[in-house]
Amino acid sequence: MKTRIDAAGNLVGRYEGLTPDAPALLIGSHIDSVRDGGRYDGMLGVLMGVELVAHYAAQGRRFPFALEVIGFGDEEGSRFPAAMLTSRAVAGLLKEAPADMQDPAGITLHDALAEDGLALERMPEAARKPDEILAYLEAHIEQGPVLEAENRAVGVVTAIAAQYRFHVRMKGVAGHAGTMPMSLRQDALTAAAEAVLAIEKIGQSGPSDLVATVGQLTVVPGVPNVVPGEVVFSIDVRAGDAAVRNAATVEIRTALEALAARRKVTLEISLQQDLPATPCDAALTDMLSEAAQAVTGTVPRRMVSGAGHDAMILAALAPVCMLFIRCEGGISHNPAEAVDPSDVEQAFQVMTRFIEDFAGRRP
Amino acid sequence: MKTRIDAAGNLVGRYEGLTPDAPALLIGSHIDSVRDGGRYDGMLGVLMGVELVAHYAAQGRRFPFALEVIGFGDEEGSRFPAAMLTSRAVAGLLKEAPADMQDPAGITLHDALAEDGLALERMPEAARKPDEILAYLEAHIEQGPVLEAENRAVGVVTAIAAQYRFHVRMKGVAGHAGTMPMSLRQDALTAAAEAVLAIEKIGQSGPSDLVATVGQLTVVPGVPNVVPGEVVFSIDVRAGDAAVRNAATVEIRTALEALAARRKVTLEISLQQDLPATPCDAALTDMLSEAAQAVTGTVPRRMVSGAGHDAMILAALAPVCMLFIRCEGGISHNPAEAVDPSDVEQAFQVMTRFIEDFAGRRP
Repeated sequence: MKTRIDAAGNLVGRYEGLTPDAPALLIGSHIDSVRDGGRYDGMLGVLMGVELVAHYAAQGRRFPFALEVIGFGDEEGSRFPAAMLTSRAVAGLLKEAPADMQDPAGITLHDALAEDGLALERMPEAARKPDEILAYLEAHIEQGPVLEAENRAVGVVTAIAAQYRFHVRMKGVAGHAGTMPMSLRQDALTAAAEAVLAIEKIGQSGPSDLVATVGQLTVVPGVPNVVPGEVVFSIDVRAGDAAVRNAATVEIRTALEALAARRKVTLEISLQQDLPATPCDAALTDMLSEAAQAVTGTVPRRMVSGAGHDAMILAALAPVCMLFIRCEGGISHNPAEAVDPSDVEQAFQVMTRFIEDFAGRRP
Repeated sequence: MKTRIDAAGNLVGRYEGLTPDAPALLIGSHIDSVRDGGRYDGMLGVLMGVELVAHYAAQGRRFPFALEVIGFGDEEGSRFPAAMLTSRAVAGLLKEAPADMQDPAGITLHDALAEDGLALERMPEAARKPDEILAYLEAHIEQGPVLEAENRAVGVVTAIAAQYRFHVRMKGVAGHAGTMPMSLRQDALTAAAEAVLAIEKIGQSGPSDLVATVGQLTVVPGVPNVVPGEVVFSIDVRAGDAAVRNAATVEIRTALEALAARRKVTLEISLQQDLPATPCDAALTDMLSEAAQAVTGTVPRRMVSGAGHDAMILAALAPVCMLFIRCEGGISHNPAEAVDPSDVEQAFQVMTRFIEDFAGRRP
């Protein structure tokens, strides 16, 4: 492999194909991590690309396409207030240099790049041409409990979920917990509690990849002897299909409006984030499924990724597919992140089979 | 009136009766306030005592008992970490000097008292002998919305509520809001939401003076993209009758245990505070009701005070009774606290009638 660091700081290795300058099958994930994270989130997918190249190089085997392995430099957004900045550069989504920004220590992105000989204004030059990249394959730990619950080593990702995030404010009337009779209360917390349960129920009533979560909830004033006058909370709704997410969101809004009216509390819902769904390429996903079935002996679990991945960005450049690898307890973003080496071995076999099938089906 | 400051810092005025050294009818409330509080909580009851004495002094009218007016110095516990310290001294409940303590500025109670020529170790000397005090009458703003809702100027307090305060911790399993399917969640917040609604329902199902409140609730970790792993919250349960409070508490505990088991979250409930109910003296309360009926022309509302008052401490020394005065919107502990002067005028008439009836019925 010939390696280089591209204009966005991504580490890229190229293993040439049968002809020079052949287009590439790009394999990768990210090499950055969250603070206090684990050792597999991202890095495992990069190392598997390196191992695949090592495997074929040892055999002296080459394909009608090059194999490129990429380690993206910023997927998590842990240091600078941006995420997937370097995969966006590769996918050609940075039409101009990003605005300069500071890390928590006050170091600018400009200076951080310069330290490694890179220039902020040249980041867009990391963009690949669509005809250079045939497809993008990403292996990643699941970061969830589904594969473990179903006793499977790997799963095939059909889409990266569409996501909505809302901020909700419910206002009732604060009162003395001793002197405000139950019948006269306009308690913002009991209203919010009913909302939390309605959101859960709507999340449970859809397809299995629909999830609806209240993760943040704050009570004002939040003291034991005052009936809460105000509650603010978050709603996160995701599904592989944006229509499913949207329908659930309409149901949630209707339920919240009804209970707010009944409980005489005001309701404000504001949209904070709207990420579209990214379907994986159907043909590649079928190939990956066939490879997984051949290796594991069972029809693999097809699943929606509720978490975002570089693949959702690369989809703007090339057809993408993703393989999930079981992780212990579904735990991620935590030093306790763990994978079973035999699962990784199976994933490796699935990927070799995929690459060889991909070569066989190329015209 | 002859005035003095007693050993606990209370301001006391004495209007002698027909004979010197006659036992006293004690009228009062507290002159301290909460930070950013209103002008009526406490002080109104003290000023009404002063006005009553002025009224009889202007007539030259004296009773077989003295009238004493007292302004307690610490009901709210706003400055030092103690509440009702000075009424406790008067009631004889301070058997020895309280432990010294500091205010937020680091000034000790010892030094604060010394500044006014008082001595910490002499506070218990403020204790009155039971044969010196015939009864204690306290007028106070309702601090709740009941009288306003029923369009009444005054109400008669039958008891100061028994109160329990609990601290509850529910632990589930935190997870990624995108990757943790609804079916595998052990969400501490949806469990807590169900608890909040169960507590509300139990509070609503009892007599009208039963109140059950979750005023404080904190989600851990409390970020939008994480299924909550832990929630802590408060429960405040009050009723005029401790048996009602206790029964409601048993129901709450049973409901929380059932839902925690069903939702596979752990539950810890710890008792933080247990205040017994203080019934007002039945005969005095009847007299106060008759006086209120005579003045207002209707049978007065009898009600439990959900908030604590000096009267609950004075009950250890003498029979007590309390008159509530309507306040605007039920608002208290807020600069917006307001009363209608004509309500205060009616309360004043009720109190004169009570004092005169009390004189008539004394053997």
